[in-house]
Amino acid sequence: MADAADAVHSLTDEVLSRLQGCTDARFKQVMSSLVTHLHDFVRDVDLTGDEWMQAIQFLTATGQQCTDKRQEFILLSDTLGVSMLVVALAQARAGGRAAGATPATEATVQGPYYWEGAPDRPLGFDIGEGVPGEPALYTGRVTDTEGRPLPGALLDVWSGDGEGNYDMQMADNTTMRARGRFRTDAQGRFWFWSIRPSYYPIPMDGPVGRMIERMGRDPNRPGHIHMMVSADGHVPVTTHLFVADSPYIETDVVFGVRDSLVVPFERHEPGTAVDGRPMRKPYWSAHYDFRLATAAGA
Amino acid sequence: MADAADAVHSLTDEVLSRLQGCTDARFKQVMSSLVTHLHDFVRDVDLTGDEWMQAIQFLTATGQQCTDKRQEFILLSDTLGVSMLVVALAQARAGGRAAGATPATEATVQGPYYWEGAPDRPLGFDIGEGVPGEPALYTGRVTDTEGRPLPGALLDVWSGDGEGNYDMQMADNTTMRARGRFRTDAQGRFWFWSIRPSYYPIPMDGPVGRMIERMGRDPNRPGHIHMMVSADGHVPVTTHLFVADSPYIETDVVFGVRDSLVVPFERHEPGTAVDGRPMRKPYWSAHYDFRLATAAGA
Repeated sequence: MADAADAVHSLTDEVLSRLQGCTDARFKQVMSSLVTHLHDFVRDVDLTGDEWMQAIQFLTATGQQCTDKRQEFILLSDTLGVSMLVVALAQARAGGRAAGATPATEATVQGPYYWEGAPDRPLGFDIGEGVPGEPALYTGRVTDTEGRPLPGALLDVWSGDGEGNYDMQMADNTTMRARGRFRTDAQGRFWFWSIRPSYYPIPMDGPVGRMIERMGRDPNRPGHIHMMVSADGHVPVTTHLFVADSPYIETDVVFGVRDSLVVPFERHEPGTAVDGRPMRKPYWSAHYDFRLATAAGA
Repeated sequence: MADAADAVHSLTDEVLSRLQGCTDARFKQVMSSLVTHLHDFVRDVDLTGDEWMQAIQFLTATGQQCTDKRQEFILLSDTLGVSMLVVALAQARAGGRAAGATPATEATVQGPYYWEGAPDRPLGFDIGEGVPGEPALYTGRVTDTEGRPLPGALLDVWSGDGEGNYDMQMADNTTMRARGRFRTDAQGRFWFWSIRPSYYPIPMDGPVGRMIERMGRDPNRPGHIHMMVSADGHVPVTTHLFVADSPYIETDVVFGVRDSLVVPFERHEPGTAVDGRPMRKPYWSAHYDFRLATAAGA
C-alpha cells in the first residue's frame, strides 16, 4: 500500500501545482490556502468515505434549502463562527484609532434577514405598528470616534418581532415588517419606535438545524435589533443592539454578542414618552450612541 | 479596536467550547477539527466580507446545480483533490499486505456518474452496442493479493462514450448506456466489449467550471473506464483503467491517475477477436488483472 500512503501526502502539492496558471494572484492565494487547510482537516480526522458522502449530502441539502428569503449557507457560516470571524477581521483591518478617541462601534454579523430597500421613515416613526411585541423607543446619536455629531447619518434598521419571528419567515413573506431607514438630525440624533425584540431559535427544520442538534448546542439567539449605520466619509458599521436581560446572551448560537453592544432596556408605565408620544400601555426605551471611524482618505 | 483583534483570536475557542454537550464523540472530533482548520484558513488569508459573500454565493449555486443526475459538490471535491485524498486514506487505512503478496489494485475516485442498478450481463456481452466510439475488448482476471483466482467476483462497469459523454449527460438521461455488471468465471476471468473511452472536460457550465477557469486549469480528464470490483470476503475496490496514450494523463483535473492503473490499449485490424467475435472494423483490446485484499476477519 506504499502508493496509497504516498498519495495521502503528495496529493496536496499536486493540487497546488495546478494553480501555477492562475493569473488572479489573490484568488490563487485564497484557493491555495483553502486546499492546504481542507486537506489538513481531511488527514487530521482520517475522514472515511461514508463521512465524506455525508458531507457531500449535507452541503447539497444546504444549498437546496436556500431561497431568496432563506440563506442556509449564511446560517452555516454564522453557527460555525466563520461570519463573526470575518466581521472581526474586517474591523481589525480597518485599523487604529486617533489618540484620545474612543473606538468605533463594534460590528457583528449581518445575519440572513437583511432585506434591501426598507422604506425611508421620519424620525419618531413607529416601524413596530401592527407587529406583535411590546413597544420600545430607540434613541441615541451617531458621532465620529471623537464624539462629533454626524448629521444625516443613515440607520437601516431591522429586527424580528416580540415573538422571535422575522417578516421573511412569515407565510406572507412579501410584506416588510419592523424595518425602516432613518436619518439623524442636525445634532446627529435619532429616535424611532419599534418593539422590544425577543430571543429566538435559528430555523431548525433544515440541514444546519440538524447539525446544531447533533452538536448538542442550544439553537437560540438573544433578543437584538439590527442596525446598519453609515455616513459620508466614515466606515459604515453593521451591528446589533442586544437586549441586556435577554436569555441566551451568554450562548448566542452565532457568536455575535460583544459586551459593548449589550444595552439595558428600561421599562416605563403608561404616560407620555420623552419624544411626546402618549402611551396607553407600558413601553420600553433603549439608548445607544454609535461611533463611526473616519474612512481612509476621507 | 482591541476588541475586534481579540475576537479574531478568541472566537475559535469560543466555538469549540460550545461542542461540550456533543455526545457523538466522532462527530465532535470531526467538527472541532473542521472549525479549527476553517478558522485558520479565514485568518491566514484575512478573508474580506466581499470574498466571504462570494463564497456563500458559490456554495449556494453549487448546491442548486445538483440534480439526481448531476452532483456538483462531488465535482468540487474531485477538482480540489479532496475525493482522491479520501480514497487514498481509505486504502492506506485498509492496511498492510501479506508477506510476498502484491498490493491490492489501487483505488481512485468514484466520480459523479455512478448509477446504481446497471443490468447483469453475461461474459462477452457488448455494453457499447449503439454507443459512439471504437469497439474495445476488455479481458483480465480478479484474484486475491496472492494471485488466487476469485470466481464469481462482481465487476460493475461504466464509462463515457467515444466522444466523452456519459448517458447521464444526454438529453435522454433515463436510458443507461455503456454500463453493465459482470461476474468472473470459475477461473476468476472476465471479458466483455464496450468502447474505448475518450478524454472529456468536466461540466464547465456550472460554478465548479467557473472556478476551474478562474484557476487557469485545464478541465479535462484522460480517457478511462470505471470498475467497481467486489468479491465475498474481500475489500472491494472502486477504480478506473486509464487509456495509456490518452491526452491529459498527466493533468487529470480530478487527480485520479495512478501509474498502476494506466493500461495500454492495443489496436487490431478487422478479423476474429480472441473471444471468437468476428469484427468487421478495427478494434482495441485492453487487459488488466484486479487484485483484492482479504477483508479483516474473513
